[in-house]
Order: sequence, then structure tokens, then C-alpha cells
Amino acid sequence: MVAKRKKTATEPRLSTASRKWKQAAESGAVSSGTAAVDAESFLNRVRELKREIESREAAKQRFILQQSSDASSAARIEVRELDCDQVLAELERVILSAAKSILEGRGLSYKVPRRSAGNQEYVEELERIVLKDGVAIRNFASVASVRKTTIMTRVLQLVHELCTRRIHTTKRDLFYTDVKLFRQQTESDDVLNDVACLIGCTRNSLNVVASEKGIVVGRVTFQEDGDLIDCTRMGVGGKAIPPYTDRITNITSDAEFILLVEKDAAFMRLAEDRFYNRVKCIIVTAKGQPDVGTRLFLRRLKRELHLPILGLVDSDPYGLKILSVYMSGSKGMSYDSANLATPDIKWLGIRPTDLDRYGIPEQCRLAMTENDLKTGKDMLEEDFIKKNPAWHRELSLMVKRKEKAEIQALSNFGFQYLTEVYLPEKIRHGDWI
Amino acid sequence: MVAKRKKTATEPRLSTASRKWKQAAESGAVSSGTAAVDAESFLNRVRELKREIESREAAKQRFILQQSSDASSAARIEVRELDCDQVLAELERVILSAAKSILEGRGLSYKVPRRSAGNQEYVEELERIVLKDGVAIRNFASVASVRKTTIMTRVLQLVHELCTRRIHTTKRDLFYTDVKLFRQQTESDDVLNDVACLIGCTRNSLNVVASEKGIVVGRVTFQEDGDLIDCTRMGVGGKAIPPYTDRITNITSDAEFILLVEKDAAFMRLAEDRFYNRVKCIIVTAKGQPDVGTRLFLRRLKRELHLPILGLVDSDPYGLKILSVYMSGSKGMSYDSANLATPDIKWLGIRPTDLDRYGIPEQCRLAMTENDLKTGKDMLEEDFIKKNPAWHRELSLMVKRKEKAEIQALSNFGFQYLTEVYLPEKIRHGDWI
Repeated sequence: MVAKRKKTATEPRLSTASRKWKQAAESGAVSSGTAAVDAESFLNRVRELKREIESREAAKQRFILQQSSDASSAARIEVRELDCDQVLAELERVILSAAKSILEGRGLSYKVPRRSAGNQEYVEELERIVLKDGVAIRNFASVASVRKTTIMTRVLQLVHELCTRRIHTTKRDLFYTDVKLFRQQTESDDVLNDVACLIGCTRNSLNVVASEKGIVVGRVTFQEDGDLIDCTRMGVGGKAIPPYTDRITNITSDAEFILLVEKDAAFMRLAEDRFYNRVKCIIVTAKGQPDVGTRLFLRRLKRELHLPILGLVDSDPYGLKILSVYMSGSKGMSYDSANLATPDIKWLGIRPTDLDRYGIPEQCRLAMTENDLKTGKDMLEEDFIKKNPAWHRELSLMVKRKEKAEIQALSNFGFQYLTEVYLPEKIRHGDWI
Repeated sequence: MVAKRKKTATEPRLSTASRKWKQAAESGAVSSGTAAVDAESFLNRVRELKREIESREAAKQRFILQQSSDASSAARIEVRELDCDQVLAELERVILSAAKSILEGRGLSYKVPRRSAGNQEYVEELERIVLKDGVAIRNFASVASVRKTTIMTRVLQLVHELCTRRIHTTKRDLFYTDVKLFRQQTESDDVLNDVACLIGCTRNSLNVVASEKGIVVGRVTFQEDGDLIDCTRMGVGGKAIPPYTDRITNITSDAEFILLVEKDAAFMRLAEDRFYNRVKCIIVTAKGQPDVGTRLFLRRLKRELHLPILGLVDSDPYGLKILSVYMSGSKGMSYDSANLATPDIKWLGIRPTDLDRYGIPEQCRLAMTENDLKTGKDMLEEDFIKKNPAWHRELSLMVKRKEKAEIQALSNFGFQYLTEVYLPEKIRHGDWI
């Protein structure tokens, strides 16, 4: 049955193709999984994108170098990934200077970078949020800060133990090591972020990690804690991305790009069809909101393999939000943004303009709720949307039409439409923004 | 600092051991990951349990055989796992008989097993919920059932397409293939369960699967869609369990038991410490509420490897609920219980009596909310708790004390207390119920 669709002024070519494919699929003329991706020119647009990204990357590096040699520019706090020995050395430096201060009669205190919103800024050239140079003094002799100072000292000791033993733990476990002192997990979590800023390292460098959620499949191999992992041989379920990437080494790949997928249903389709063998790519998903483990992993892939990243998300404000979290980091951990953010992700789909171009029937589109609309309107004002006119146009259209759609809406044309038609079309035409 | 603890009349030996271990850990005397699991006798209790389970399994088989030869016993609907060709044959049989009925002037109708609560029962000998033999006639000529009958016909056609192409899809994708007809996903989901009952197969046999959530690590290898997966070489992140197990073949293992873990934080600790190399086991988690994929996988492991399963969950009513879902299935899919349920899981910990035995300080225990207490009290009345007096005692104690605790509470004694002391102690003493 051919889906009825809205008449619009946009390009009707693809929706005709969709219709034909649906008919072919229903009559059994499409043989599953074998549609070869032909022609030499198929990957031209992806390769162009790769060159473009490389030259932008070089420009950014020049900007960073210039900044660091330019003493007049605003100081910023950017933390680095440190190994256990480096963290231990920094911890010992902090404690030594605290001990010295006590011996000299000035008492125990720590100088902690402020992480409040007023001390944050979005840096256009770096494409991410960073901390400015505001600092707070946390003093043991003050009634207002005695508790925080005590908690800080305890957390420093616990992190020292983790790094000495070279093991990882979760924030929850850390909290339970001294509930009497911490009282609430928010308190130990909060101080943990302070400690990362104080040491000048990422939270993961402190060996306190979030739980894992992401999975990966496709054309990449690496060593994980000594085990060789070949992600083309991970069956249909894929490999669970570990919560910490410091055990991952020797990443190699012959992929042309990374396909970042919002939802596991789409991931499952791609994995079962072994899409990565037809179009050489690496497929990553965090199953919804990106967790720290997946963000770190994506960033490692990008930094070591220099591949373009194409995002496949729902056509709703949350899909965009998810891309933005991967790209510029969340505000809560802005000090860590350099190490978690992966700038330059292209929005492949599902985009509001796709709904008409691919002739997605009205029944598969959903009305946006009041809340969706509010989120969409707020996002139109955000820096990361404003600086990308094409994204701004798409989001404006979404808010104007008050329509959203899930990746699954493509199933209207058949179960394998996503892997057999939609993605190959998109990639061939370089249809990302 | 030694945690203050409640004075109780219970065995203080272990809590003293806990305290000593904590002191040793804090003074650096415990070397991480190397504590060898000595003595030949260490696994005696696990091996005893294995023999016990095997003999019970044999008794159950005898019961099933006797039932099927005993015509007077109540008829029950139990679906089987079928492969694509078998499902296709059944689908064609159903449609053929429908066509015949139309040609004979009796119109289109389907005989669908009832899945309502009144048609369910818990079978003690089988240790799971099953469907009784109530049947409903779904008639196209009746105004009340015309819509359901139409949806049913469409779902039969879609499942036929999936099985012909030998691909899997999610319930959400299935819904989107015909939103105009289905209107709500609940309607297509509901009919899908009916189709499974009608065909006499599991929902997964229809190639419509839930999304994946679980991970596995440890001493097991298998083929997944042709790829050899060795779960001892899956780094620290583990292998994602696929949403369908029909692509998994050739399971082999030298493990002594399966450790089923509620939470990913505990899983992470076990994986990083490579606990499975010190005590040969397979470690599985669904990260909270078990999904169908993980339940199917666990059942496959149990059925093919005949290993005891030890459950490590939070000491609260939800921890127990999770064990019960693995063991006897959820009510919504009772027709499928035989293929999803893994009876005979032992409750290793954290148990209410552990809180005192291991001297878990009061600060690490949490007060149960009104809701927790209600859930706990309701569970005391349920069959699966009542038939196991030891579980009933523990749950009664929990409700009486109004105290719960998470697995992470063990971190109070040190980050690796779980793998270095708690689990080895439990296993050595056969301390499960």
C-alpha cells in the first residue's frame, strides 16, 4: 500500500524511490543484505568531508598554539588526561603544599577552581565550553568550609588509593567508602569534580568512572586490557564499550567514517545487516543519552583515526540535544569538556526536511508536545545551533511544523529500508549538515 | 577508621574478618588482584550444588513426561522455540485454514488462546507460570472483533516477511510498518503476543525482539552469527548480549557456576579484577530489570552447561523481584515462561542477614520507604517466596527491620572487598539459599 503524503514544494525524487522500494520489498524483489554498494564514486562525499575536517583540525591546532603563546588572552582551565603516576605525583604535590601551609601556621586550605555557570564560557574556536580562571579558597579554619575541606582531604586520600592500586571504581562505590562523612552522594560527587579541577585532570584520570552503556560494532580493532578486540567479529550483539578508555590501545581501522546512532533498535538493524561490511564504517551507540564512557570512546576513535562522524538521531529536539552533548559537552562537567567533546559531528538524519523528501506518511509523524516545543525554541537560542545556519533552519522548520519523527518511522517502507536505501542514498549524496 | 556497628547476637566472625581486611587494605598490605584462591576444597559446595540441581532437573523431566502421557491432567499452553521454517509452516497452516473457512462460507476467524490473569497458573513442579487452555474466537464478521482480526492478519503477514527474509526487528519497528492500522504500539504488541500463542512459539521465534541491555564476561565461548566469541578475552567492558539467541551456537565453558549480578557497578568490579580467572565462572548482568535478551541468554547457558546460578542483588524487595523475573517469568508473558524462565537461582547476597554478619555499618544501610515496605509485604504472599522458607525468613527480616542495602555498601570495607573477601567467603561456605 502506497503511503499518502503531503504535497510539498520539496524535491520529490527520493520519495518516489521510497515508494518503488517499498513495492519491490513487498513483492519480494529485494534480496536482503546483498544489495552491493557499487560505483567508485559512492564514497566521494565522505572522503571530501574527511579532508575538510582535517584542514579545520589543523586550523584549530594553530589557534591553540597561538593562544598559549599569547599571554594577554584570558586564562582558561583545561584539564588533561593523566596516567596513574602523574595523578599520584600531583596528589602528593597538593598534600605537600597543604602540609607546608599547616607547618607554617597558615592552616589547611585548598585553592579550588570555581565550576559555577558564571565561570564558564563557550569558546567558538575550540567549539566547546571551558572554565574561566576563577578560584575559591577552601579553608579548614572557616566554619563555612570546614566540611567541604574535610571531604576534599578524604577524597584525595581515596583517589590516591585507587591510583596506587591501579583499579577503577564508580562514584557510588566511592560514596559508600565513607557514608558517615559524605552523607549524600551528591557531596562526594561534587568534591570529586573539584579534585579533578585541582589536579588538572579529567574525572576518569582519577579512576572514578561512570557505568557503561554503549556498544560498538564495525571496522575497528583495538587492544582492551591486553585482549585483542576485532569489532567486525562481535556477532550481532556488538562489543560493550568499557567505562574507561585508558585500557584501550592500538586502535586500527579501515573505516571511511563513524556512524553514531541514537537508539539501539537502529543499531540492531545495522549490526544484523552487517552494514559496516557493505559501507566500511564503525557503528557506535550509547542507547539514548550519551554516557561518559561512550563519549570518551568516540573521542578516542576520532582523535586517532581522523574519521568523519555522521549522526543518526530522531527528528526531535532531544535527538539534537544528544548530538550537542557529544559535540560540546554538558554544562555540569565543563572543566572536562576538552576531553569529552568530539566537535564536528555531522547531522545525517532523521532531519525535519527528510520527512517530506522521503515521503514519510503523516501517520508516522508525531505531534510535538508543549514540552518538546519549549525545548526546541530554547535550543534555537543556543550557541551551538546558532553558529550552524543549516541546523538552525532545520530546527526552525521542526518547531514551525510542530512535527517530530523517530528513526523507526523509516520502517514504514520496509524493515530494511534504513540500511538498503536511506543510509546509502544519504552517504552517496553527502546529505549531511 | 573502623566502622561502628550494631551489636547483635549473630555470628561475629565475618565482621571481624571484614574489619581486619579493611585495616590491611588501608595500610596497603593487600595486594590487588593477586589473592589466590587456594585449597582444593574451595569449590566443594558449588560442586555439591551442581549435583543437587542435576538430580532435581531429572525429577522435573520425569514429571513433564508423566504429564504428557496423562490425558486427564489439565491442558496447558506452552510455546516452543521454533526456527524460521517451522514458524513459516505454522503461519501457512493458520492462513490456509482461515482461507478454507472463508470458502466454506463461515467467514474469517482465528482461535486465539486467552492470556488474561484468569487463564494463568503457577505450576509448582515446573516452577513457573503457565497458561491454561482457555481460548477466544476472534471473528472478522463481528463489530467487536473486526479491528483485532484485521490487525492479526496484518501481523501474520509481517511476521511471514521477517521469517522469509530471516531478519529480526523490534516491536517499535513492527508498529511503524503500519501505523494507520495499528494506531497505538500497544495494539500491535498485544496482537504479537496473541500470534505467538496461536503459532505455539516464543515471541523471539517470530523474529520480533526486544532491545539488548545485558553484558557477559568470563569463562564461556560461543559462536555468534558465525563469529567466535571468547568471553575471557573481552577486555574489561565485556561482550554485549544480543537481543536474540538463535544466532548463538556451540556454547562451551569450563566454569563452575554462573554469577548473576544485578548492577553494572558490581559487574565492572568483577570484570576489572578478572574474578572469573580466580574462581572459574561466567558473569552476567542485565543492568537492573532483566530484559528478554539476557533472560534467554541465561537460560541457554543453564540448559546447555548445567551450571548452578548464584544471584548477587541489592538487599531490597526489588533485588528479589529481579531474581523472581529470571526464575519464574513475568505475568505479561506467561505463555512464554518455559522459554524465558531459569528456575533454581540461588540467592547468594546481599541478604538481610548479611548486614549484621558482615558488620555493614548503619550509615551504609538505608531506611525502606513506605513503597519498599508495601512491595516487600506483598512479596511475602507470593508463591515463589512462600515455597522457599529461607527466602521467606530473609524477606520477613528485611520488612521487620525496615532496612535495605545496596551491593555497593560493601565498598565501605574497601574497593575490592567484594571480589577479595565477600564472594570467596560466600562461595567457600556455600552461603546461598
